[in-house]
This record gives sequence, C-alpha cells and structure tokens, in this order.
Amino acid sequence: MTRVYNFSAGPATLPESVLRQAQAEMLDWNGIGASIVEISHRSAEFIAVAARAEADLRKLIGIPEDYAVLFLSGGATTQQALLALNFASPGGTVDYVVTGHWGKTAIKQVRPYVKVNIAADGEPDGFTDIPPRESWQLTPGADYVHITANETIHGVEFRGDAPDVGEAPLFADFSSSIASEPIDVSKYGVIYAGAQKNLGPVGVAVVIVRRDLLKREGLPRADIFDYRSHEARDSMLNTPPTWNWYLAGLVFRWMLEEGGVEEFARRNAEKSRIVYDAIDGSGGFYRNQVLPEFRSRMNIPFFLPDEALTARFVAESKEAGLLALKGHKAVGGLRASLYNAMPVNGARALADFMRDFQKRHG
Amino acid sequence: MTRVYNFSAGPATLPESVLRQAQAEMLDWNGIGASIVEISHRSAEFIAVAARAEADLRKLIGIPEDYAVLFLSGGATTQQALLALNFASPGGTVDYVVTGHWGKTAIKQVRPYVKVNIAADGEPDGFTDIPPRESWQLTPGADYVHITANETIHGVEFRGDAPDVGEAPLFADFSSSIASEPIDVSKYGVIYAGAQKNLGPVGVAVVIVRRDLLKREGLPRADIFDYRSHEARDSMLNTPPTWNWYLAGLVFRWMLEEGGVEEFARRNAEKSRIVYDAIDGSGGFYRNQVLPEFRSRMNIPFFLPDEALTARFVAESKEAGLLALKGHKAVGGLRASLYNAMPVNGARALADFMRDFQKRHG
Repeated sequence: MTRVYNFSAGPATLPESVLRQAQAEMLDWNGIGASIVEISHRSAEFIAVAARAEADLRKLIGIPEDYAVLFLSGGATTQQALLALNFASPGGTVDYVVTGHWGKTAIKQVRPYVKVNIAADGEPDGFTDIPPRESWQLTPGADYVHITANETIHGVEFRGDAPDVGEAPLFADFSSSIASEPIDVSKYGVIYAGAQKNLGPVGVAVVIVRRDLLKREGLPRADIFDYRSHEARDSMLNTPPTWNWYLAGLVFRWMLEEGGVEEFARRNAEKSRIVYDAIDGSGGFYRNQVLPEFRSRMNIPFFLPDEALTARFVAESKEAGLLALKGHKAVGGLRASLYNAMPVNGARALADFMRDFQKRHG
Repeated sequence: MTRVYNFSAGPATLPESVLRQAQAEMLDWNGIGASIVEISHRSAEFIAVAARAEADLRKLIGIPEDYAVLFLSGGATTQQALLALNFASPGGTVDYVVTGHWGKTAIKQVRPYVKVNIAADGEPDGFTDIPPRESWQLTPGADYVHITANETIHGVEFRGDAPDVGEAPLFADFSSSIASEPIDVSKYGVIYAGAQKNLGPVGVAVVIVRRDLLKREGLPRADIFDYRSHEARDSMLNTPPTWNWYLAGLVFRWMLEEGGVEEFARRNAEKSRIVYDAIDGSGGFYRNQVLPEFRSRMNIPFFLPDEALTARFVAESKEAGLLALKGHKAVGGLRASLYNAMPVNGARALADFMRDFQKRHG
C-alpha cells in the first residue's frame, strides 16, 4: 500500500495515524465487542467519546465557556440555512460580505426567509481581493453580518484580526480554515464549519455559537432545525452521525498532540509559501491572481496557459502520487488544498513537480 | 477480539464481513492510495460507489423507475420536517396516523408549517395496537397521509399490505423496517429511513419519492431543504456523507448476496418468533403487551416484574455477550432489536439467556 499526497478540497486527506486507529478499532472499539459505529449514541461509551471530542475542540481552538459547541449532521450548507431560521428576526435584515462562491451559496440558503443586504461584493474584481472594511455598506440594526473566512474555490482568505462590524454579531463560515491558526473566538457570534476539510471526516458539522444568541426567537422552524433544542440535548436531539463525530475527535486529539493551532499555523504558512513561491517563480507559467495579502493558505487555485496543459498536469501529477489537483468546475484550472493533515513534504513534492512539469512543458 | 450479539436499536449491529471490508480499505480504497473518506464526492471513484449503492438498493427493495432515490444527511427526523416543506400546500392539511413515539415526533417537526390532522391515534390503547383502518378520520384533499411503518420504541408494526388511504399519497417512516421483507413500493408516495437501523451505518438517510410528487411547489424553503434540488444533483447538491453512503452500499450488496429481502423476511420472522416465544412461554415473567398481529419483527420491547430485576438482566446479559438490551427511556424495561444484520443465532442466544435468567431469578 502506498499512500499518496492528496490535495482534495474536501472530503480531504486525513492523518494516517488517525486512519490506522479507526482501522484497528473497526470491529471492536475499546474491547466492547462492537464497533463504535454500531452502538447507541446514548450509550455511556459514545457519550464519553462525544464529550472528549468537544473538550478537545474547545482546548484546540480556545472556545470560551459562554459559547456552545454543536456537532450536527448536514454540512455547512444546512447551517447556512439554519443561521437565518435561528437568528434572524421577522422582517429583519441580514448583511452578507461576499468574497467568493461560498458566500453566494450562503445567501441562496437564506433568501427565502429574510431580507439580505450584500454589504460588500468581491465579484466585480473577479474575487481577487476582499473589499476594504471601510467600503462595506452595513445595515444599522442588522440581525447579523456574515463572512466566509476562507473561500475554498476562489482561494481568498480573511487575514489578521476579525473585521469589526459594530453591534451586529459576526457569523463566519470557517469550513476550510477552522483550527488552521489561532483566532479570537470572542470576536464572533457564530463560527461554523463542515468537518471534511480542516477538521477531519465528512458527514458532521461543528457550530460554535455564543450562548446569548440562543435566546433569540428566530423564525418559525421545525424542532430539528432549532439550535436551542440541539444545545439542550448535547447535540443528541436525534441520532447524530456518531462515526463521523468519533473520527473528528481522533483528529482533534492528533492536532493537540502535534502542537495545536500555533504549530499548524506555522506549518500552513510554510506549506502555502512553498506553493505560492512555485507559482510566482514560474515567470507566468503558473498564475494565481489573488492579491497576496488575501491569498488563502488553505486552498490555492492556479492556472496554466491552456486547457490541454491543465489536463496533462492533472494526469501526470496523479501518476506522480499527487492526487486531486484538478480545479473546481466553477473556475477550472488547478487547485491545491493544504489543510492541517497535509504534511509540509506534500507541499514540497507538489512544488518540485510543478517545476519539473514546467521544464518539460514550459 | 470477541464480537458480541448487539441488540442496539440504532445505531445498530453491522454485518461482520462489511466491517472487515471497510477495515481493509480504510487507508487505501481500491488501490488509489487514499481512503474513500478522503476523496471528493465529485470524483469518478466516489460517483461509481454512489451509483452502485443506488442500483443495489433499487434491486434490493424493488424500486420502480418512476421513483427517485435520495441519499441525504440528517437522519429521519430531518426528513420528517422536509416532508411538509416539500409536499404540503400553503394552508393545506396533512394527516398523521400515530402508532407510537416516532409518529408523535414526526408531527412535532411539521406543526410549525402545516395544519396537522391526527387521523388515528394508538396512544389511548397504550400503543398496543394499530387503530383499524375503518376508524381513521382522513381529511378529504389532504396533502398526504403519514404512517410509521414500524415503531422502534413501542414495538408496533404495520403488517401485510400498505393501508389504502385513497387519493392522498401515503408517506411512511420505514427507518427500522426498510428492506426487512418485500413491500410494494408503488403503494407509497414517499418512503424514508435513517440508515442506522436496518440499512447500515448512521449518518445517512434514504428517501424514496415518487417523481410526480417532486413537481409540487411545497412551502418556502432553503435550496438545501428542497428535494428537487437534491434530485437534480444526484444527492450531491452539497458534500454528502460519503463514508456513510459507501458503508450503506456495502450493506446493500451484502443483503443481495445473502438472498435479498425474501431471505431476510424469512430470517426476521424466525428471529422474532424465537424471542416472542421466550416471552409468551415465560408464564408472565416476561411481558409484551402489543397485540400479536401488530407485534414488530424488528424491535421487541419486553418487561420484567420490577426495576431491580431489569437492571440485573441488563448487567448479566452484557456479561453473557448480549449487548444493549436496555429499553428506551421513554418506556423503560428491555428491548431487543433484530435487524437484518442480527443472525438467527443471536436470537437463539437471547432466548436461551432469557430462560436461564428466569430459572435463576423467576
């Protein structure tokens, strides 16, 4: 068995040690004679797994006690809809800052429920930058302001401190950059993320919500769409995706053991520098048009001069053990995702391949 | 490693051969150098896995071509809410037949959206029977009629042909009995099921929907709550729970290889007969009060004379390698779940233990 370097944008590569542990425990978890995927979410065994995962995530990210942590099924897109249902007021307005594809998706999910104000939009610039904070047209009294911390497709990332948006709570889709560097959770009202990028396995989403926001009435909704109900039942209102939650917990522990978010911030800076250097040093053979100060450390879209070369790059890189470098269909080209589980050597291998490919085809 | 007989109501026991295959493929699926949980849902490899799972499920259950099959995250409870959002009309009425706990939960999810008529209710009889069809008070012009094919907690199951409800389409929660015996899918408008009971792993739900119903406008809802959008994108509107879908596919194939639903109907009849015989032959030491013609083949709740004996039964059975026999907290007592993956020998071991326990404590 040879493990490749897997640059998939999500579902994405997992730490090999985590997969080995899941493999070892697949038929018999902790000597109980059954797999963790076969036991009740209400069993003492699973409740301990779930509690440990939450405690480890709190430690990893530095989540204050006045924030609830929910582990939910449905991915980030479902949470995008639930944000409006739980936190918007009847007749209220919500502000969205659009810096790529996923910001637009987030708006699509809430349009049936609320008035949406697009406070800023990077699309006129082809999503190559983030509109400066002073240009944002925020709504006084908005129910919340929504940003996408990192745009997985367009490769645009908020860098530095969270933007100051005044009175309204700041909600952020952190699907592709959560736990990639230290952040100040207290600057946010809600942080949410599908786990399948930086946190581990597909099939579970994490929602970190400031508890006072849970007192909002929100809009009419089913009990299963009510964060208050999930919070009151420790995310076990219904059967949660237990295996996915368990695997996420193994990833959290691995991250802590590796040195936590400070160490991953260091590695992620190094990995992305290696790949951007390969792009910028190619004399225009490889192109990435995002302004350097907004470039994503997690997802690097890049482009070759033509489609034929792109197809050849995808095929040859796969042969060389570099998987899933094809770009998202919305923008084409190539894309390298460099989440926490991607080792620095993976980025080096990609940069070496890029230089070699250019020599042969440039 | 000793595998126990696991009577959990869900998440529930899986076929050992399926777990062994998932274990073998955990780090390297099919020679690609990565796990199936690490690759894109839009990759050719995963799309093939997904398509095979759907084809196998269609074959297994006998799903006609004019029915769509969706693989969704969120479990059955989420689908309960989505039924109203997708298929109810503004101002319309929906009919619910309540035969246990889950029928009540289903209603709770739709009350914020629609007028609910409880057409029949088994609660006055303590959920020991199913109110006869001729007593149901159906609403002329109802948007749909909802039943719970098998009540996992109260152990009440619709037996025989699907009830005739006239013009309105019949929607059924089949979470705990799907694929347990042959059914005529064409009698239903929607069949839905969380997979974690009879179909395999937790974290994915199956929705089988007659395509003409997808033309209904439904109620205002986010795109992610729209079955039409999921259907148009082959259940890949957003990132689906790929690993769970894959594992469900392995279970479908196992079921086909074992002989399909006819063979499982035979085994399930045998298993449940063995356990009910142990109850009925105990001279009242063990009790199950559901009328025999409505007794569930999948979930058998049963009761001992007192709490102390019940606690002792749970502890001693666990020692004997019989896991998860404690009843649901809503009703107490004991419960044995006998899904497709439970071998006949598991039911025999339970019946033997019950007789031995009675000898020692009766």
